[in-house]
Amino acid sequence: MADISISAIDRIMRKAGAERVSEEGATTLREVLETLALDISREAIALAKHAGRKTVNAEDIKLASRKLLALTKLGV
Amino acid sequence: MADISISAIDRIMRKAGAERVSEEGATTLREVLETLALDISREAIALAKHAGRKTVNAEDIKLASRKLLALTKLGV
Repeated sequence: MADISISAIDRIMRKAGAERVSEEGATTLREVLETLALDISREAIALAKHAGRKTVNAEDIKLASRKLLALTKLGV
Repeated sequence: MADISISAIDRIMRKAGAERVSEEGATTLREVLETLALDISREAIALAKHAGRKTVNAEDIKLASRKLLALTKLGV
């Protein structure tokens, strides 16, 4: 794990309005995001293969995200 | 947006098994993750405030993630 930088996580949390964030808080959010990213990526890769492509494209990611998150509010 | 680096997204997608990823595929996954990160952060901040704290901690992030994602499989 640990592909997303803690500084990126910190920036996002400050944008959301956080005054202070514990180190464990930031690393936990990183873990959640990386786990989701792996799940979405695996699903998107399967969708690309299903379509006869080796390249994962934006539509694969959108479909995979909708399927795994069921979050239409993401607007993707 | 654009807080998470594209190189981080690329690393995660390769770990998931991707051979090739379009530029739009990577930027779309970044958007999905940043949107989720903002939503989880806002919820976590509200939970910290509710508990009388200014510091967002790991438990706030875990509770917020469970609430927003309903993904017990995340193991957080």
